[in-house]
Amino acid sequence: MSSGTLKFSLESIAENIVKGDRRALARALSIVEDGGPEALELVQRLLPKTGNAQLIGVTGSPGVGKSTLVDALISEIRAAGLKVGVLAIDPSSPFTGGAILGDRIRMQAHTMDKNVFIRSMANRGHAGGTALATYDAARMLEAGGYDVIIIETVGVGQSELAIAQTADTTILVLMPGSGDDIQAIKSGIMEIGDIFVVNKGDLPGANKTASEIIASLELSTKGSEWKPPVHVTNAEVNEGVNAVWNSVAAHKNYLNSSGQLKLRRKHKLQTELSELVAEIARNKLNDSLEKSQAAQKLMNQLLESELDPHSAAREVFEKIFSN
Amino acid sequence: MSSGTLKFSLESIAENIVKGDRRALARALSIVEDGGPEALELVQRLLPKTGNAQLIGVTGSPGVGKSTLVDALISEIRAAGLKVGVLAIDPSSPFTGGAILGDRIRMQAHTMDKNVFIRSMANRGHAGGTALATYDAARMLEAGGYDVIIIETVGVGQSELAIAQTADTTILVLMPGSGDDIQAIKSGIMEIGDIFVVNKGDLPGANKTASEIIASLELSTKGSEWKPPVHVTNAEVNEGVNAVWNSVAAHKNYLNSSGQLKLRRKHKLQTELSELVAEIARNKLNDSLEKSQAAQKLMNQLLESELDPHSAAREVFEKIFSN
Repeated sequence: MSSGTLKFSLESIAENIVKGDRRALARALSIVEDGGPEALELVQRLLPKTGNAQLIGVTGSPGVGKSTLVDALISEIRAAGLKVGVLAIDPSSPFTGGAILGDRIRMQAHTMDKNVFIRSMANRGHAGGTALATYDAARMLEAGGYDVIIIETVGVGQSELAIAQTADTTILVLMPGSGDDIQAIKSGIMEIGDIFVVNKGDLPGANKTASEIIASLELSTKGSEWKPPVHVTNAEVNEGVNAVWNSVAAHKNYLNSSGQLKLRRKHKLQTELSELVAEIARNKLNDSLEKSQAAQKLMNQLLESELDPHSAAREVFEKIFSN
Repeated sequence: MSSGTLKFSLESIAENIVKGDRRALARALSIVEDGGPEALELVQRLLPKTGNAQLIGVTGSPGVGKSTLVDALISEIRAAGLKVGVLAIDPSSPFTGGAILGDRIRMQAHTMDKNVFIRSMANRGHAGGTALATYDAARMLEAGGYDVIIIETVGVGQSELAIAQTADTTILVLMPGSGDDIQAIKSGIMEIGDIFVVNKGDLPGANKTASEIIASLELSTKGSEWKPPVHVTNAEVNEGVNAVWNSVAAHKNYLNSSGQLKLRRKHKLQTELSELVAEIARNKLNDSLEKSQAAQKLMNQLLESELDPHSAAREVFEKIFSN
């Protein structure tokens, strides 16, 4: 395929996304997931069409019922007459990729609804990479006219939180008796959650878990304008999910009226820029290790413990990158 | 404190670590956790004393009993006459830090044993940062003569895996019926585990879970020399832990005799260098955003969607960093 053909093709993908073509959107998501110059061109072409969706992060440990909750939320969002896109980030290997959640979700009720677009995304080689691809994937969905974009991640680790932070509103999902999760929350992960959900509310201890969260939140949100609501749901049978959706809407109003939305988006852009710069540095290093004798010499000094990694990294920046 | 005094002080910290002084070690771990020029000097001073310990990563979802298993492993390691250091990475907030696991572990039986050193480390601002601090913390313990260093992380997310990969031998801990974890394993996280442990073996389904892991491993390790053993343990009552420790010793022999140890350590050094270079890039950007008008102008263009983040990152590298 000549470069001209490809250009035309990317142009038409971009145009068709804006028209609402789902196949073009699917293609674009694959392209931004792979990264590279085609991804960049798509992002550039569609940039003016972005920034209007509400981005909702849904995160929590494996087994708390995130997918079920997302499924129930989709129904609420559709009932409100809105188009919804879901990006499910898979807890897959840094090596092989994978598509677990996506497969599960795609089985569900919304497959036939043309105003619902569900996509699973494989984790990239490192934490930052996945978050970066997520930013661009959300841009594609925004350009496609999706009003709400749900970003679902698994786990309460650092990279999952980094991905969750690509959202405007983050829902942290727990289940009754998630002792370790609540420990983690107490120690600060809670600062990530704008809305808390104790799912599987039919299990014993649901209200106790909710009370523990509320107690922790009272300390940590003292003086802040937004008091994160804590919901008990049983998403399986659609119990309590409407209240969660109402909180999402309330949080959107809060973000807009308080000026927080602008601040959060600025912070997000700065984080994205920082990770992109880090990514360029990694790529340049890999290139140098393949091609530059000076870089290879440095690596050998490292292996022989003649040089420490910190000093080596500085040399890479000061000598090898500057050539 | 004058710079001369500080130099002297770092010199004596380094010397005392090598002599086995625990207070000097504790101080050094705080210094490398904070990063900065003092950390660099300690690493440089102690580099010749590093490289001789066996680094064991222990990872798994919250609640599977990692801390209990680590506790039981410490007893095995001590019974073998070896000194053991533990770095417990806390699943804490990117914002506040915290020390949950550490507090729990410190309560345990080994507090009085002078050949056991347990330290909890807070997560840093981003995934890469925690892994970087872990590399240096392990160096301090190696210089202190610890024969075995256990790095305990919580979760099976990407950053936890990055931290686990700072080890030579990684133990992945699960519990009976960890359905979601096993899904994750099937999709590739399994490539991280050198040894698998199904803990809480007294719960129903332990053997079934072990069989599922074994079945998955058969496919993924076809043709490879090391077949990851799968153990069922009940660490609470010390059942099966000796077999785990024997597998750790067997894996050490395998790494040495196969030449894999050298390869793995080369790969680790390359990863560490790559993350250090990325970290320098992030720091340089933050500096620029504070001080450079050109960088601030770029940020404004980003906020106004006049420029996409990818192009902005390239400009940062090509124009702002080169000045």
